Amino acid sequence: MAFSPQEYRERLEKVQTAIQQRGMVGLVVNSPHNICYLTGYHTSGYFAYQVFLVPAEGEPLLLVRELERPNADEYSWLDRDQQAVYLDNEDPPVVTGRWLAKLGWTEAGKPIGIEKTCFTLAVADFEKLCGTASPNTVVDGSGIVDRVRLIKSPQEIAYVRRAAAITDIGMRTGLAALAIGKKELEIAAAIQQAQTLAGSEYPSLPNYLSSGYRMTLGHATATEKVIEAGDVLKFEITSSIRRYTAAMMRTAVMGKPTGKVAEVADLLIRSQDRAFSMMKPGAVAGEIDAAIRQPVLKAGLRKTYYSRVGYSLGIGFPPFSGEWETCDFMEGDTWLLQPGMIFHMIVNANGISFSETILVTETGSERLTSLPRELFVAG
Amino acid sequence: MAFSPQEYRERLEKVQTAIQQRGMVGLVVNSPHNICYLTGYHTSGYFAYQVFLVPAEGEPLLLVRELERPNADEYSWLDRDQQAVYLDNEDPPVVTGRWLAKLGWTEAGKPIGIEKTCFTLAVADFEKLCGTASPNTVVDGSGIVDRVRLIKSPQEIAYVRRAAAITDIGMRTGLAALAIGKKELEIAAAIQQAQTLAGSEYPSLPNYLSSGYRMTLGHATATEKVIEAGDVLKFEITSSIRRYTAAMMRTAVMGKPTGKVAEVADLLIRSQDRAFSMMKPGAVAGEIDAAIRQPVLKAGLRKTYYSRVGYSLGIGFPPFSGEWETCDFMEGDTWLLQPGMIFHMIVNANGISFSETILVTETGSERLTSLPRELFVAG
Repeated sequence: MAFSPQEYRERLEKVQTAIQQRGMVGLVVNSPHNICYLTGYHTSGYFAYQVFLVPAEGEPLLLVRELERPNADEYSWLDRDQQAVYLDNEDPPVVTGRWLAKLGWTEAGKPIGIEKTCFTLAVADFEKLCGTASPNTVVDGSGIVDRVRLIKSPQEIAYVRRAAAITDIGMRTGLAALAIGKKELEIAAAIQQAQTLAGSEYPSLPNYLSSGYRMTLGHATATEKVIEAGDVLKFEITSSIRRYTAAMMRTAVMGKPTGKVAEVADLLIRSQDRAFSMMKPGAVAGEIDAAIRQPVLKAGLRKTYYSRVGYSLGIGFPPFSGEWETCDFMEGDTWLLQPGMIFHMIVNANGISFSETILVTETGSERLTSLPRELFVAG
Repeated sequence: MAFSPQEYRERLEKVQTAIQQRGMVGLVVNSPHNICYLTGYHTSGYFAYQVFLVPAEGEPLLLVRELERPNADEYSWLDRDQQAVYLDNEDPPVVTGRWLAKLGWTEAGKPIGIEKTCFTLAVADFEKLCGTASPNTVVDGSGIVDRVRLIKSPQEIAYVRRAAAITDIGMRTGLAALAIGKKELEIAAAIQQAQTLAGSEYPSLPNYLSSGYRMTLGHATATEKVIEAGDVLKFEITSSIRRYTAAMMRTAVMGKPTGKVAEVADLLIRSQDRAFSMMKPGAVAGEIDAAIRQPVLKAGLRKTYYSRVGYSLGIGFPPFSGEWETCDFMEGDTWLLQPGMIFHMIVNANGISFSETILVTETGSERLTSLPRELFVAG
């Protein structure tokens, strides 16, 4: 188990308190991230329906595909009587509905919460769930578990720290492998191998790697493209430990960088450094955002800059590696930083990108990814 | 581009014919698989909303996040006037609604199709889309594109064939790397490296690898567990070329297998061989299913056997590597095999598993994964 039963119990209690405050009979949790957070159970087979039923009071129930059940024994703190399965010839939302009735949720006269922003709950399944909830009503319970996830425990921080160390190893390996005439895929293979040998599980996002003209593509992974002299390269490396994610971006250049590339890289790094120095409990997100975003805009490095410059990081399953739907850095944000929050802080312009995984401590912030923050010059 | 503009046009026309037959004004396509199929556009950033609007007649429109737009130029056949973007400070379903109005879909007096089984369309976004569609009605358009995808073109088959060759390489590498005292992760690292160097893109599923007691876990990936003498190991390797997937499962044993393991492996392989020999155009799915499922049940190797023994394979994005929601092999199925279909055919009992990627040809079937079909004995 990744955490003590006590830690899982504490998480569950926080969620149950929120459920009570909303006046709901219980919360139907379909998100693999939230299920993993509350139970420890996880599987890469989350393409199949799975659900965790959290009542306002009392014991929860995990319902998974029959062939995944051994993962509940392997990874979760739940007893067998807190587990149930559906068979491949059954309709999972209908089975869920039978459990809702059995647990008394449909008769309680209080609404049932369902996660409407959950990416693994298809509309068709949601509509079936609503049918089974009758005569009770369904309300949106999105964000209840996600908000509890924002503050990381010491053990969670330890896992992200380990993932960050592996991300460092991967990036170091990738940068060291750079050479004119190699394919992007060769660099990617070296990075993956280093990460896996260092203990990373399958990552919540593929590593990004693009060179030359490909650097302007969004979220581009390695291809057969050959690396050429003068190419600028963009890397984003993501590692996972116990499904906890750490990510880092770097930019490299094959040979002496042009003055413009060096200048942009320098401005981006300095802006972000200033923002990192401002990150501490009580800091206003919008001010940190401005420290990164405004210098980029003022220098005219981008015409517009609407994308987030940071987001909360924690449990990841492809393709959701971050907690950006719960908490991110956008212009004018008024939310406050708290100890135990972890962020992936990003800056980019003209394809040149830098990012770090950053922990908010009691007194300031700590960079968990630790590679030198600089434009890497190869060859 | 992965395919000629003409091939994309032909796919679009098939979908438009289906839209017309359903009496819809158009289809809102949110599935990254379907968007890739119809446009060529893809990004691993599909965690962000993206949509392809296919009218019953006339030109379609791709709407993506601003930072992904270069991927439309890179990978799709669409002109710039068939592309649109939303900004990170906009609400994508609301932007979609503006386009629906501009395109005349909301006034057409015909229903708008939306893919209700699409895993990337959150309920919250669906509800907003329904709001913007008013006064028009919304109907379920799931499966329209997916069914067109079932029959693969020669170029699609060529990509799966290449992915299958890489899967062979990965499996061969993994089996050759097996040794008592190594960690599962070491084997996994060697497989990944071989796949990536052979040209595989990021796969649509992580490779599965489990040994000893872990073999009974569903969809288990490699861990720090050390491989021991007598361990039985389960492998499933997935490679991707142009997002087309080929997968294969094998079972290995460290040292001489027990009589029971050898016997089960033999029965599974023979059952599947018999099924493969029956696969040809016009064959009934349920009969092929029975050839695999019934011998396993008759021999008492499993108490129950409800899981699919095969499913359609094609475009994959994590965590959906297969087209099992459109077409799979379940007991009693009456659908008929057609030339150009590709399947991942699976058999397993007691954790012992074998699978192949199989093409239905004009006269029979062809195994695209080509490694010897046998229990692998290591050491």
